[in-house]
Amino acid sequence: MRVLILGGDGYLGWPTAMSFAAKGHDVYVVDNYMRRNIAQATQSEALIPTPNLNDRANIFKSLSDCDIQVKIGDICDYRLLETVFKEFQPEAVIHYAEQPSAPYSMIGFDQARETLNNNLNATFNVIWAVMEHAPDCHIVKLGTMGEYGTPNIDIEEGWLEIEHKGRKDKFLYPRAAGSLYHTTKVLDTDLLWFYVRTFGLRVTDLMQGPVYGLSTDESDQDERLLPNFHYDDIFGTAVNRFLVQAVAGVPLTVYGKGGQIRGYLNLKDTLQCVELAMHSPAAKGELRILNQFTETFSINELADRVQRVGNQKGLNVEVKSIPNPRKEAEDHYYNPAHSGLMDLGLKPNYMTDEVVAQMLDNVIKHKDRIDESKIMPRIKWK
Amino acid sequence: MRVLILGGDGYLGWPTAMSFAAKGHDVYVVDNYMRRNIAQATQSEALIPTPNLNDRANIFKSLSDCDIQVKIGDICDYRLLETVFKEFQPEAVIHYAEQPSAPYSMIGFDQARETLNNNLNATFNVIWAVMEHAPDCHIVKLGTMGEYGTPNIDIEEGWLEIEHKGRKDKFLYPRAAGSLYHTTKVLDTDLLWFYVRTFGLRVTDLMQGPVYGLSTDESDQDERLLPNFHYDDIFGTAVNRFLVQAVAGVPLTVYGKGGQIRGYLNLKDTLQCVELAMHSPAAKGELRILNQFTETFSINELADRVQRVGNQKGLNVEVKSIPNPRKEAEDHYYNPAHSGLMDLGLKPNYMTDEVVAQMLDNVIKHKDRIDESKIMPRIKWK
Repeated sequence: MRVLILGGDGYLGWPTAMSFAAKGHDVYVVDNYMRRNIAQATQSEALIPTPNLNDRANIFKSLSDCDIQVKIGDICDYRLLETVFKEFQPEAVIHYAEQPSAPYSMIGFDQARETLNNNLNATFNVIWAVMEHAPDCHIVKLGTMGEYGTPNIDIEEGWLEIEHKGRKDKFLYPRAAGSLYHTTKVLDTDLLWFYVRTFGLRVTDLMQGPVYGLSTDESDQDERLLPNFHYDDIFGTAVNRFLVQAVAGVPLTVYGKGGQIRGYLNLKDTLQCVELAMHSPAAKGELRILNQFTETFSINELADRVQRVGNQKGLNVEVKSIPNPRKEAEDHYYNPAHSGLMDLGLKPNYMTDEVVAQMLDNVIKHKDRIDESKIMPRIKWK
Repeated sequence: MRVLILGGDGYLGWPTAMSFAAKGHDVYVVDNYMRRNIAQATQSEALIPTPNLNDRANIFKSLSDCDIQVKIGDICDYRLLETVFKEFQPEAVIHYAEQPSAPYSMIGFDQARETLNNNLNATFNVIWAVMEHAPDCHIVKLGTMGEYGTPNIDIEEGWLEIEHKGRKDKFLYPRAAGSLYHTTKVLDTDLLWFYVRTFGLRVTDLMQGPVYGLSTDESDQDERLLPNFHYDDIFGTAVNRFLVQAVAGVPLTVYGKGGQIRGYLNLKDTLQCVELAMHSPAAKGELRILNQFTETFSINELADRVQRVGNQKGLNVEVKSIPNPRKEAEDHYYNPAHSGLMDLGLKPNYMTDEVVAQMLDNVIKHKDRIDESKIMPRIKWK
């Protein structure tokens, strides 16, 4: 299958590219290095330096004999994206090409407007490139569980049947996200849904929770093939922050009360989910929405887990609450459905103690690179 | 009160500016002439030529001794908008500054992307200018009833309480609009709601139906002060199209079955609604949504009305169905709430036969200017 991966230099894009290439697909990746540039500009570089995308593709080729075609460029430039579509004629496009940092989107006007315009125009251009140059191509778009926020009712998979004053209809599940970044993903979904129902596109929107882990069949071959590991306050997740804090010997910083519950998944499962979605495409005129995570836990539970496993390894791990830089519920109802991907065949890799221990080992190996000044929140929502 | 009117050259912006100035408010208008430029580019000029915005303000000043301060410029340029905010320090901003044509937004890639970027960046910049330079300023944003589409349940005013599996929460009413233009208004609302709940802005979002009429206390003084009357397929409404067709002696063109029901209002009532909203501002952190129309009827009922009144005037009016260029339900449930503005004090001016007759008289006066080639749909959704 000809698979176009947008945002192919990213934490998810790169391992997806390797995984699909290893499985025999014809893989083309595009990236504009926006994340690398923002990381440099905000002192948020990843823990482990990664070769550039062309170099990574060459290293992977030398080890696996699999080709990954690379284009460095911005898909917000429609002419560039059109050129790629005409040349490659993708059968599936995996769209990761968005500014992915919530804190970055909350720094100020410039960063917010950059996030809005990058994310909306990227999605808009993908829609049009498919309509004009590959109308049967299946769009697999990465959304986020963060689109839903933390409502007081069960979260369904994208859609909600509503009965109101004795009448019924089905709608996109109502969304209220916690950052401008997450809000741009809400707008993406609205935009996709308009073009899907009006022009009969095929779209799968994967509402993904926070992803953890670096290990995949391909990245395990050579450290130069590892995905980016960010532990900073801009691109880092709570999981990565806790792992690094445990290794650095500083307390794990829980934001506020720590009752924030999210749905998490292993990087290996992201690869599975995207592949499962790709092999069973949405119908023409269908916006299929799947909630992509395998288990839920609170920030406090996550901190406890890292503390327990860290202490078993002889680290002396403390946990401490700090004022929450975000505006979010710290104690809330959370019951999101997530059977769709299981029904497609997902075999979850849960966050076992063994998995946490492996992740800690990875960080320990690079302990000398940890820059503690990157860890604490530098951006506040207020 | 210091009132900033964005899109002050438009069909609604200009009469709003005159009305507020006549009532003693300090009025500042900004417009980038986007509508005029698109009208020229697409052969969609208004029936009655209107002086440019500076000239109109001068004519109005000479007749009423009321000042309207004019700036020609693009609010998507944040530096320009900041300059206006710093200089004028508005207490209320009325935001009409959007590309308002559904058919234009459906022509192709360029027009769609122009609509998306203009409308989203305009709203985004207004939000930020208020946050940074006038945090207590009340934003009155023109949305559209078209955001809701035609759901099978009653349309409430912006919000919906949902009970699901025994639990309850309140959400933005789910939206599914019928054009890219209308979809950008959905995105506007999502964006406003994020910033309102996160940073405590005051916003009123007026979900307006199609507006008709040219007559206001101020525009009646001099024909050069009339709002724009568009009857073309780009900016014209069904009301204006039917009026012009009746006068030109060509059949009124009903799109498809004609069962499309919408909520309409008189231009005089738009002025009332915006003023009522302005004088009773939303609270800090409140996104108040009001459905702005006074009566609903179907396209067939509208055609019948224009035909009946036209025939009374001695015109020989025929009605004919043509294939619908849009993708929309032509026979649907429609029961939208609209008590909020009535509760604030709105006194409706309904579309009586007398009102239709006056509108026909206005068109008859300019009968020789009618260009029939502008009337039929040139843009199809498919």
